[in-house]
Amino acid sequence: MIVMTLPLYALIMAGGSGTRLWPLSRQSRPKQALKLIGDRTMFQRAVDRLLPIMPPERVIVVTTAEMADLLAGQTPLLPRRNFLIEPEGRGTAPVIGLGALYARQLAGEDVVVACLTADHYIREVARFQNVLLAAAELAERGHIVTLGIHPAYPSTGFGYIERGEALTVVDGFEVYHALKFKEKPSEAMAAEFVADGEHSWNSGMFIWTATQVTREFERQLPGTAAKLNEAARAFDSATFAEAMARVWPTVEKQTIDYGIMEGAENVAVIPVDIGWSDVGSWASLLDILEPDENGNVIIGGHHVGVDTTGALVKSDRLVATIGLNDVIIVDTEDALLVCAKERAQDVKRIVEKLQQQKEYRYL
Amino acid sequence: MIVMTLPLYALIMAGGSGTRLWPLSRQSRPKQALKLIGDRTMFQRAVDRLLPIMPPERVIVVTTAEMADLLAGQTPLLPRRNFLIEPEGRGTAPVIGLGALYARQLAGEDVVVACLTADHYIREVARFQNVLLAAAELAERGHIVTLGIHPAYPSTGFGYIERGEALTVVDGFEVYHALKFKEKPSEAMAAEFVADGEHSWNSGMFIWTATQVTREFERQLPGTAAKLNEAARAFDSATFAEAMARVWPTVEKQTIDYGIMEGAENVAVIPVDIGWSDVGSWASLLDILEPDENGNVIIGGHHVGVDTTGALVKSDRLVATIGLNDVIIVDTEDALLVCAKERAQDVKRIVEKLQQQKEYRYL
Repeated sequence: MIVMTLPLYALIMAGGSGTRLWPLSRQSRPKQALKLIGDRTMFQRAVDRLLPIMPPERVIVVTTAEMADLLAGQTPLLPRRNFLIEPEGRGTAPVIGLGALYARQLAGEDVVVACLTADHYIREVARFQNVLLAAAELAERGHIVTLGIHPAYPSTGFGYIERGEALTVVDGFEVYHALKFKEKPSEAMAAEFVADGEHSWNSGMFIWTATQVTREFERQLPGTAAKLNEAARAFDSATFAEAMARVWPTVEKQTIDYGIMEGAENVAVIPVDIGWSDVGSWASLLDILEPDENGNVIIGGHHVGVDTTGALVKSDRLVATIGLNDVIIVDTEDALLVCAKERAQDVKRIVEKLQQQKEYRYL
Repeated sequence: MIVMTLPLYALIMAGGSGTRLWPLSRQSRPKQALKLIGDRTMFQRAVDRLLPIMPPERVIVVTTAEMADLLAGQTPLLPRRNFLIEPEGRGTAPVIGLGALYARQLAGEDVVVACLTADHYIREVARFQNVLLAAAELAERGHIVTLGIHPAYPSTGFGYIERGEALTVVDGFEVYHALKFKEKPSEAMAAEFVADGEHSWNSGMFIWTATQVTREFERQLPGTAAKLNEAARAFDSATFAEAMARVWPTVEKQTIDYGIMEGAENVAVIPVDIGWSDVGSWASLLDILEPDENGNVIIGGHHVGVDTTGALVKSDRLVATIGLNDVIIVDTEDALLVCAKERAQDVKRIVEKLQQQKEYRYL
């Protein structure tokens, strides 16, 4: 039984732009705005899974000016004032700092803020909700809590968290001291991390009180803290956008991992297996989605295959395939991608080539 | 120096429908109507390469009612009366028989008729024109001349012509007695045919006089000959379509190879290497067309590739490929094909599946 005295807020970081799901993802339509899984966008799914444990008034979104209307339109339950605009990308640290201040402003008291992502997949939604509540209780007790994802394979694409001594058990979730945040490792290191059973993937989900956030920023990033406070004085006033436009570009660019977490005190990690994926490439969708009887994942459209297995086909049209294995076909209105599954990470090279060719309409 | 006394006519058989180039080829848009190579359709190319050696009035086209307007529109130089309609497919024999009668009718005297195809590729156009003139001279001397294509590989998809004794040389072309027409062989037989140097592919191109045609039909297919004569009595009259509708469905279904050539007398073969291809599959276009510096054949559109070789890409859009070898990508308005090159013959299986699924709009 979890008893909380502080209100639980969520801060969804939705400012990201990515190219790894090109040609579906574009600058004006990043991953969080896409319907990759079922009929809801990744952002809608990120909000949907929170609403059973908090009212929509407590879901804050930080995003870009370009994306705000699109995302707000996708989630009409969220008050429009809950969308904060970052004038430009300055890394996750200032976003979380500002969001925590805004949550406390909305609540009128200290709050627990769950800092979450807008474009990741979580299969076990109920377990995610439960671990969030457990983490919130720990945050009230003074911990900075991070969710450590059970490493399904030795990824070199994620940071890792090494756990130390066991701290406690909350609502069935074992909690450990977070010994060390580690950058994306080499292949050999990653294999070691997975083998030793002491490491989790760093999911980038952090649960802490606004007071803790403020304390850590003032201790570790005092310059940023001062600037965030300056912007925060204009919260909910007509001059907020103006204050942000003035202050934000001068804020030190920093990620929360490097800027705060590595030097933070009292960080706890809850290792969890919630079927998490960052949906970092088209290949990852082949792992997430249930294949059909031929072992293919067909998203939309109509697929007719002869001797085709392990294919991901995303299209609104008829797609016929013959003699293909482990291939990704993404068919959009103006561009088509056909890619060997094992080369899905190289979609970014296509995007780079298009940039070199100044083919901006495809970006 | 070739001296002819009879006018040379061409009979282009353009009634075919095919599925091997699906999704570009459809029932209403068969191969001959497609721009597969350059800016002219296969049919336009078939006509273009004749016009340097005969006036357009001497080019006769036999096709279906559905196709006639389309093809006539593509070749405004040809008189509309030169398009004969076959009410339904009855094989090549009656088409050639009728076409020869029509050519003689148009000329008002005996003629040489070169029976040609509408949807094949010929790279060496000048040599093709020269061999056609040489064949016409031989036809005037009483031979039924067929063009034997140098067999580039042991194809099991073509019939073969075995040559016998050398007959003569006309304008530099060696002419042989055609010993035997052979059906599509087994792989072992095809390998033998290629190895022995005595066989050519049967290209389906025959050059003979209308008198020879009539004589062979009356000898070998007398029933058909009578019916063709009945239809021919209505040539150029308002009742021709009516006569054809009555007579044609009762004509014996027969190919020219089985019905006439195998039993014909005085057949000659001219083995030639004119860069001929029946364009029987998407894979054949990879052999015909010049690859770009990456070894890919890109038809239309805009291709951006990473580690892609041996690909055929036909599209009007942007197509990006990563880590692909020997793959065929054909992108049309409503359907997309992605096919391993070695499986190009199985495109027909897609078409069969669509028929089973009653997806007629894609056929």
